[in-house]
Amino acid sequence: MLNTIAPGAGAGIIVKKGERLKVICPEGHQVSDMFCFSESDYGESLSSSVSVDRAEKIFLSAGDVLVSNRGNVMLKILGDTHGRSDFLLPPCRESENGHTGCFENLSSTFLAYGISADRVGTAFNIFMNVEVSAEGRLVIHPSEARSGDYVEFEAQMDLVVGLTACAHLLTNGGSLRPIQWEILPQNA
Amino acid sequence: MLNTIAPGAGAGIIVKKGERLKVICPEGHQVSDMFCFSESDYGESLSSSVSVDRAEKIFLSAGDVLVSNRGNVMLKILGDTHGRSDFLLPPCRESENGHTGCFENLSSTFLAYGISADRVGTAFNIFMNVEVSAEGRLVIHPSEARSGDYVEFEAQMDLVVGLTACAHLLTNGGSLRPIQWEILPQNA
Repeated sequence: MLNTIAPGAGAGIIVKKGERLKVICPEGHQVSDMFCFSESDYGESLSSSVSVDRAEKIFLSAGDVLVSNRGNVMLKILGDTHGRSDFLLPPCRESENGHTGCFENLSSTFLAYGISADRVGTAFNIFMNVEVSAEGRLVIHPSEARSGDYVEFEAQMDLVVGLTACAHLLTNGGSLRPIQWEILPQNA
Repeated sequence: MLNTIAPGAGAGIIVKKGERLKVICPEGHQVSDMFCFSESDYGESLSSSVSVDRAEKIFLSAGDVLVSNRGNVMLKILGDTHGRSDFLLPPCRESENGHTGCFENLSSTFLAYGISADRVGTAFNIFMNVEVSAEGRLVIHPSEARSGDYVEFEAQMDLVVGLTACAHLLTNGGSLRPIQWEILPQNA
Protein backbone atom coordinates (compact mmCIF):
# COMPACT_ATOMS: atom_id res chain seq x y z
CA MET A 1 0.00 0.00 0.00
CA LEU A 2 1.37 3.36 -1.03
CA ASN A 3 1.13 6.02 1.69
CA THR A 4 1.45 9.76 1.16
CA ILE A 5 2.95 12.32 3.55
CA ALA A 6 1.45 15.73 2.84
CA PRO A 7 3.84 18.59 2.04
CA GLY A 8 5.51 19.81 5.22
CA ALA A 9 4.14 16.93 7.34
CA GLY A 10 5.51 13.72 8.88
CA ALA A 11 4.63 10.11 9.66
CA GLY A 12 5.52 7.40 12.17
CA ILE A 13 6.12 3.95 10.70
CA ILE A 14 6.82 0.59 12.32
CA VAL A 15 9.20 -1.45 10.17
CA LYS A 16 9.90 -5.00 11.27
CA LYS A 17 13.24 -6.73 10.77
CA GLY A 18 13.54 -7.95 7.18
CA GLU A 19 10.81 -5.67 5.83
CA ARG A 20 11.68 -3.10 3.23
CA LEU A 21 10.80 0.60 3.48
CA LYS A 22 10.64 2.39 0.14
CA VAL A 23 10.76 6.21 0.27
CA ILE A 24 9.58 7.80 -2.95
CA CYS A 25 9.78 11.35 -4.32
CA PRO A 26 6.60 11.43 -6.45
CA GLU A 27 6.94 14.93 -7.93
CA GLY A 28 10.72 15.40 -7.76
CA HIS A 29 12.75 18.10 -5.96
CA GLN A 30 11.61 17.11 -2.46
CA VAL A 31 13.71 16.08 0.52
CA SER A 32 12.61 13.57 3.19
CA ASP A 33 14.13 13.44 6.68
CA MET A 34 14.33 10.05 8.37
CA PHE A 35 15.20 9.21 11.98
CA CYS A 36 14.62 5.96 13.86
CA PHE A 37 14.78 4.10 17.15
CA SER A 38 15.02 0.40 17.92
CA GLU A 39 11.44 -0.67 18.66
CA SER A 40 12.59 -2.91 21.50
CA ASP A 41 14.75 -0.29 23.26
CA TYR A 42 14.37 3.42 22.58
CA GLY A 43 17.83 4.01 24.03
CA GLU A 44 19.18 2.76 20.71
CA SER A 45 18.79 5.29 17.89
CA LEU A 46 20.25 6.29 14.55
CA SER A 47 23.75 7.80 14.70
CA SER A 48 24.85 10.07 11.87
CA SER A 49 28.55 9.92 12.69
CA VAL A 50 28.70 6.17 13.33
CA SER A 51 26.96 5.65 9.96
CA VAL A 52 29.36 8.04 8.20
CA ASP A 53 32.31 6.31 9.87
CA ARG A 54 31.13 2.89 8.65
CA ALA A 55 30.68 4.20 5.09
CA GLU A 56 33.89 6.28 5.17
CA LYS A 57 32.04 8.94 3.17
CA ILE A 58 29.54 11.76 3.57
CA PHE A 59 27.03 10.80 0.88
CA LEU A 60 25.41 7.41 1.50
CA SER A 61 23.69 5.31 -1.14
CA ALA A 62 22.94 1.73 -2.21
CA GLY A 63 25.14 -0.79 -0.40
CA ASP A 64 25.70 1.49 2.60
CA VAL A 65 24.16 0.93 6.03
CA LEU A 66 22.63 3.18 8.66
CA VAL A 67 24.07 2.40 12.08
CA SER A 68 22.91 3.04 15.66
CA ASN A 69 24.60 4.80 18.57
CA ARG A 70 25.46 1.29 19.82
CA GLY A 71 27.19 0.35 16.58
CA ASN A 72 24.44 -1.97 15.31
CA VAL A 73 23.15 -1.82 11.74
CA MET A 74 19.56 -0.53 11.72
CA LEU A 75 18.89 -0.23 7.97
CA LYS A 76 20.62 -1.35 4.82
CA ILE A 77 20.20 0.69 1.64
CA LEU A 78 19.14 -1.84 -0.98
CA GLY A 79 18.36 0.51 -3.85
CA ASP A 80 18.72 4.19 -4.64
CA THR A 81 17.74 5.70 -7.98
CA HIS A 82 18.88 9.17 -6.92
CA GLY A 83 22.25 8.53 -5.27
CA ARG A 84 22.55 11.58 -3.05
CA SER A 85 21.50 11.62 0.60
CA ASP A 86 23.48 12.79 3.62
CA PHE A 87 23.64 13.44 7.37
CA LEU A 88 25.19 16.91 7.11
CA LEU A 89 22.50 19.22 8.44
CA PRO A 90 19.86 18.83 11.16
CA PRO A 91 16.08 18.63 10.66
CA CYS A 92 14.71 22.10 9.83
CA ARG A 93 12.94 23.89 12.69
CA GLU A 94 10.02 26.22 13.11
CA SER A 95 12.46 28.83 14.45
CA GLU A 96 14.18 29.03 11.04
CA ASN A 97 11.23 28.21 8.75
CA GLY A 98 8.59 30.41 10.33
CA HIS A 99 6.31 27.35 10.14
CA THR A 100 6.39 23.77 11.47
CA GLY A 101 9.62 22.04 10.49
CA CYS A 102 10.92 18.49 10.21
CA PHE A 103 12.18 18.68 13.78
CA GLU A 104 8.70 19.41 15.12
CA ASN A 105 7.18 16.75 12.84
CA LEU A 106 9.69 14.11 13.93
CA SER A 107 9.36 15.12 17.58
CA SER A 108 5.57 14.86 17.62
CA THR A 109 5.77 11.54 15.78
CA PHE A 110 8.13 10.06 18.36
CA LEU A 111 6.33 11.66 21.30
CA ALA A 112 3.41 9.38 20.43
CA TYR A 113 5.76 6.50 21.36
CA GLY A 114 6.83 8.23 24.56
CA ILE A 115 10.18 9.38 23.18
CA SER A 116 11.32 12.89 24.17
CA ALA A 117 12.15 15.52 21.53
CA ASP A 118 15.63 15.72 23.07
CA ARG A 119 16.32 12.24 21.69
CA VAL A 120 15.63 13.21 18.06
CA GLY A 121 19.11 13.45 16.58
CA THR A 122 20.57 14.13 13.17
CA ALA A 123 18.27 12.64 10.54
CA PHE A 124 19.20 10.98 7.26
CA ASN A 125 18.43 13.62 4.65
CA ILE A 126 17.07 11.63 1.72
CA PHE A 127 17.29 13.31 -1.72
CA MET A 128 19.06 16.33 -0.17
CA ASN A 129 21.55 18.35 -2.19
CA VAL A 130 24.23 19.95 -0.04
CA GLU A 131 27.41 21.13 -1.71
CA VAL A 132 30.63 20.77 0.29
CA SER A 133 33.42 23.07 -0.87
CA ALA A 134 37.10 22.15 -0.67
CA GLU A 135 37.32 24.33 2.47
CA GLY A 136 34.33 22.57 4.04
CA ARG A 137 31.77 25.33 3.40
CA LEU A 138 28.21 23.99 3.08
CA VAL A 139 25.73 25.37 0.54
CA ILE A 140 22.17 24.05 0.30
CA HIS A 141 20.90 23.63 -3.25
CA PRO A 142 17.38 22.54 -4.23
CA SER A 143 16.98 18.77 -4.36
CA GLU A 144 17.68 17.34 -7.80
CA ALA A 145 15.51 14.27 -7.22
CA ARG A 146 13.34 13.46 -10.22
CA SER A 147 9.73 12.37 -10.16
CA GLY A 148 9.65 8.71 -9.10
CA ASP A 149 13.11 8.58 -7.57
CA TYR A 150 13.24 6.31 -4.53
CA VAL A 151 15.51 4.91 -1.86
CA GLU A 152 14.73 1.43 -0.60
CA PHE A 153 15.88 0.30 2.86
CA GLU A 154 15.83 -3.11 4.50
CA ALA A 155 15.34 -3.10 8.28
CA GLN A 156 17.98 -5.04 10.20
CA MET A 157 16.00 -4.81 13.45
CA ASP A 158 12.45 -3.83 14.44
CA LEU A 159 12.25 -0.06 14.12
CA VAL A 160 10.12 2.96 14.90
CA VAL A 161 10.82 5.27 11.94
CA GLY A 162 9.93 8.94 11.69
CA LEU A 163 9.74 10.22 8.11
CA THR A 164 8.94 13.68 6.78
CA ALA A 165 8.17 15.60 3.64
CA CYS A 166 10.71 18.31 4.43
CA ALA A 167 9.24 21.71 5.25
CA HIS A 168 12.26 23.85 4.37
CA LEU A 169 11.63 26.00 1.30
CA LEU A 170 15.22 26.43 0.07
CA THR A 171 15.96 22.70 0.31
CA ASN A 172 12.99 21.90 -1.87
CA GLY A 173 13.35 24.54 -4.57
CA GLY A 174 10.87 27.03 -3.14
CA SER A 175 7.72 24.93 -2.80
CA LEU A 176 6.77 21.94 -0.66
CA ARG A 177 5.70 18.63 -2.20
CA PRO A 178 4.56 15.26 -0.84
CA ILE A 179 6.67 12.19 -0.06
CA GLN A 180 5.35 8.65 -0.49
CA TRP A 181 6.38 5.48 1.29
CA GLU A 182 5.46 1.83 1.34
CA ILE A 183 6.35 -1.27 3.31
CA LEU A 184 7.34 -4.24 1.18
CA PRO A 185 7.72 -7.78 2.50
CA GLN A 186 11.07 -9.40 3.07
CA ASN A 187 12.92 -10.28 -0.14
CA ALA A 188 12.51 -13.94 -0.98
CA MET B 1 45.70 25.16 37.29
CA LEU B 2 46.86 23.06 34.39
CA ASN B 3 45.38 19.54 34.34
CA THR B 4 46.70 16.60 32.33
CA ILE B 5 44.69 13.79 30.74
CA ALA B 6 46.91 10.74 30.36
CA PRO B 7 47.26 9.24 26.85
CA GLY B 8 44.12 7.30 25.96
CA ALA B 9 42.18 8.53 29.02
CA GLY B 10 39.37 11.02 29.71
CA ALA B 11 38.14 13.59 32.23
CA GLY B 12 34.88 15.11 33.44
CA ILE B 13 34.92 18.87 33.89
CA ILE B 14 32.31 21.28 35.25
CA VAL B 15 32.49 24.59 33.39
CA LYS B 16 30.28 27.40 34.66
CA LYS B 17 28.71 30.00 32.39
CA GLY B 18 31.28 32.66 31.49
CA GLU B 19 34.28 30.54 32.42
CA ARG B 20 36.79 29.62 29.75
CA LEU B 21 37.98 26.09 29.01
CA LYS B 22 41.35 25.90 27.32
CA VAL B 23 42.23 22.58 25.65
CA ILE B 24 45.93 22.24 24.94
CA CYS B 25 47.97 19.81 22.83
CA PRO B 26 51.25 19.77 24.80
CA GLU B 27 53.29 17.47 22.55
CA GLY B 28 51.54 17.99 19.21
CA HIS B 29 49.82 15.46 16.93
CA GLN B 30 47.12 14.52 19.44
CA VAL B 31 43.34 14.73 19.06
CA SER B 32 40.91 15.46 21.92
CA ASP B 33 37.22 14.52 21.80
CA MET B 34 34.77 16.80 23.62
CA PHE B 35 31.09 16.23 24.40
CA CYS B 36 28.90 18.10 26.87
CA PHE B 37 25.54 18.36 28.59
CA SER B 38 23.78 21.28 30.20
CA GLU B 39 24.51 20.94 33.92
CA SER B 40 20.96 21.97 34.81
CA ASP B 41 19.19 19.55 32.44
CA TYR B 42 20.95 16.54 30.97
CA GLY B 43 18.29 16.34 28.25
CA GLU B 44 20.15 19.18 26.57
CA SER B 45 23.39 18.08 24.92
CA LEU B 46 25.83 19.02 22.19
CA SER B 47 24.51 18.60 18.64
CA SER B 48 27.01 18.11 15.83
CA SER B 49 24.58 18.92 13.02
CA VAL B 50 22.96 21.94 14.69
CA SER B 51 26.46 23.33 15.29
CA VAL B 52 27.51 22.66 11.69
CA ASP B 53 24.28 24.25 10.45
CA ARG B 54 24.92 27.38 12.49
CA ALA B 55 28.50 27.65 11.17
CA GLU B 56 27.53 26.67 7.60
CA LYS B 57 30.79 24.72 7.40
CA ILE B 58 32.35 21.43 8.46
CA PHE B 59 35.51 22.72 10.12
CA LEU B 60 34.80 24.96 13.12
CA SER B 61 37.27 27.43 14.60
CA ALA B 62 37.55 30.79 16.40
CA GLY B 63 34.33 32.77 16.17
CA ASP B 64 32.14 29.69 15.73
CA VAL B 65 29.80 28.32 18.38
CA LEU B 66 28.88 24.83 19.58
CA VAL B 67 25.11 24.47 19.81
CA SER B 68 22.79 22.10 21.66
CA ASN B 69 20.03 19.78 20.44
CA ARG B 70 17.63 22.53 21.59
CA GLY B 71 19.32 25.17 19.48
CA ASN B 72 21.03 26.98 22.37
CA VAL B 73 24.69 28.01 22.25
CA MET B 74 26.70 25.94 24.73
CA LEU B 75 30.24 27.08 23.96
CA LYS B 76 31.83 29.85 21.95
CA ILE B 77 35.26 29.30 20.41
CA LEU B 78 37.28 32.32 21.53
CA GLY B 79 40.70 31.29 20.26
CA ASP B 80 42.19 28.53 18.14
CA THR B 81 45.88 28.38 17.27
CA HIS B 82 45.42 25.22 15.19
CA GLY B 83 42.31 26.00 13.14
CA ARG B 84 41.11 22.49 12.31
CA SER B 85 38.51 20.64 14.37
CA ASP B 86 35.36 18.89 13.16
CA PHE B 87 32.28 16.79 13.98
CA LEU B 88 32.72 14.31 11.11
CA LEU B 89 33.45 11.02 12.85
CA PRO B 90 32.26 9.50 16.13
CA PRO B 91 34.37 8.86 19.25
CA CYS B 92 36.63 5.85 18.69
CA ARG B 93 35.51 2.61 20.35
CA GLU B 94 37.13 -0.38 21.98
CA SER B 95 35.58 -2.55 19.25
CA GLU B 96 37.72 -0.81 16.61
CA ASN B 97 40.78 0.09 18.71
CA GLY B 98 41.27 -3.20 20.53
CA HIS B 99 41.63 -1.10 23.68
CA THR B 100 39.51 1.47 25.56
CA GLY B 101 38.38 4.23 23.23
CA CYS B 102 37.07 7.79 23.54
CA PHE B 103 33.52 6.45 23.54
CA GLU B 104 34.18 4.33 26.63
CA ASN B 105 36.09 7.16 28.29
CA LEU B 106 33.29 9.67 27.63
CA SER B 107 30.63 7.16 28.67
CA SER B 108 32.25 6.35 32.00
CA THR B 109 32.83 10.06 32.64
CA PHE B 110 29.16 10.88 32.09
CA LEU B 111 27.94 7.76 33.90
CA ALA B 112 29.38 9.31 37.06
CA TYR B 113 26.74 12.05 36.58
CA GLY B 114 24.00 9.48 35.99
CA ILE B 115 23.96 9.98 32.20
CA SER B 116 23.56 6.84 30.07
CA ALA B 117 26.12 5.91 27.41
CA ASP B 118 23.27 6.02 24.88
CA ARG B 119 23.18 9.81 25.31
CA VAL B 120 26.84 10.31 24.32
CA GLY B 121 26.55 11.66 20.79
CA THR B 122 28.97 12.92 18.16
CA ALA B 123 31.84 14.70 19.89
CA PHE B 124 33.75 17.77 18.74
CA ASN B 125 37.02 16.38 17.44
CA ILE B 126 39.59 18.96 18.48
CA PHE B 127 42.86 19.04 16.46
CA MET B 128 41.55 16.24 14.19
CA ASN B 129 42.68 16.01 10.59
CA VAL B 130 40.06 14.45 8.33
CA GLU B 131 40.33 15.00 4.61
CA VAL B 132 37.08 15.32 2.67
CA SER B 133 37.40 14.58 -1.04
CA ALA B 134 35.29 16.25 -3.71
CA GLU B 135 33.11 13.12 -3.80
CA GLY B 136 32.68 13.17 -0.01
CA ARG B 137 35.15 10.38 0.80
CA LEU B 138 36.70 10.70 4.26
CA VAL B 139 40.33 9.93 4.96
CA ILE B 140 41.81 10.20 8.45
CA HIS B 141 45.29 11.72 8.58
CA PRO B 142 47.44 12.12 11.69
CA SER B 143 46.71 15.33 13.58
CA GLU B 144 48.91 18.21 12.48
CA ALA B 145 48.57 20.03 15.79
CA ARG B 146 51.88 21.43 17.00
CA SER B 147 53.20 21.37 20.54
CA GLY B 148 51.36 24.07 22.50
CA ASP B 149 48.43 24.47 20.11
CA TYR B 150 45.19 25.18 21.95
CA VAL B 151 41.51 25.87 21.47
CA GLU B 152 39.86 28.16 24.00
CA PHE B 153 36.11 27.97 24.63
CA GLU B 154 33.81 30.22 26.64
CA ALA B 155 30.84 28.48 28.28
CA GLN B 156 27.48 30.07 27.49
CA MET B 157 25.68 27.96 30.12
CA ASP B 158 26.74 25.74 33.03
CA LEU B 159 28.12 22.55 31.50
CA VAL B 160 29.28 19.03 32.28
CA VAL B 161 32.08 18.47 29.77
CA GLY B 162 33.68 15.16 28.88
CA LEU B 163 37.15 15.52 27.36
CA THR B 164 39.58 12.87 26.15
CA ALA B 165 43.11 12.34 24.96
CA CYS B 166 42.01 10.34 21.92
CA ALA B 167 42.90 6.65 22.02
CA HIS B 168 42.84 5.98 18.26
CA LEU B 169 46.31 5.25 16.90
CA LEU B 170 45.82 6.36 13.28
CA THR B 171 44.28 9.69 14.30
CA ASN B 172 47.28 10.49 16.44
CA GLY B 173 50.10 9.43 14.15
CA GLY B 174 50.71 6.01 15.67
CA SER B 175 51.28 6.85 19.33
CA LEU B 176 49.11 8.28 22.09
CA ARG B 177 49.99 11.50 23.88
CA PRO B 178 48.46 13.54 26.71
CA ILE B 179 46.01 16.43 26.48
CA GLN B 180 46.00 19.32 28.93
CA TRP B 181 43.19 21.60 30.01
CA GLU B 182 42.56 24.49 32.33
CA ILE B 183 39.64 26.57 33.50
CA LEU B 184 40.19 30.31 33.24
CA PRO B 185 37.94 32.91 34.83
CA GLN B 186 35.47 34.99 32.84
CA ASN B 187 37.12 37.60 30.63
CA ALA B 188 37.00 41.02 32.26
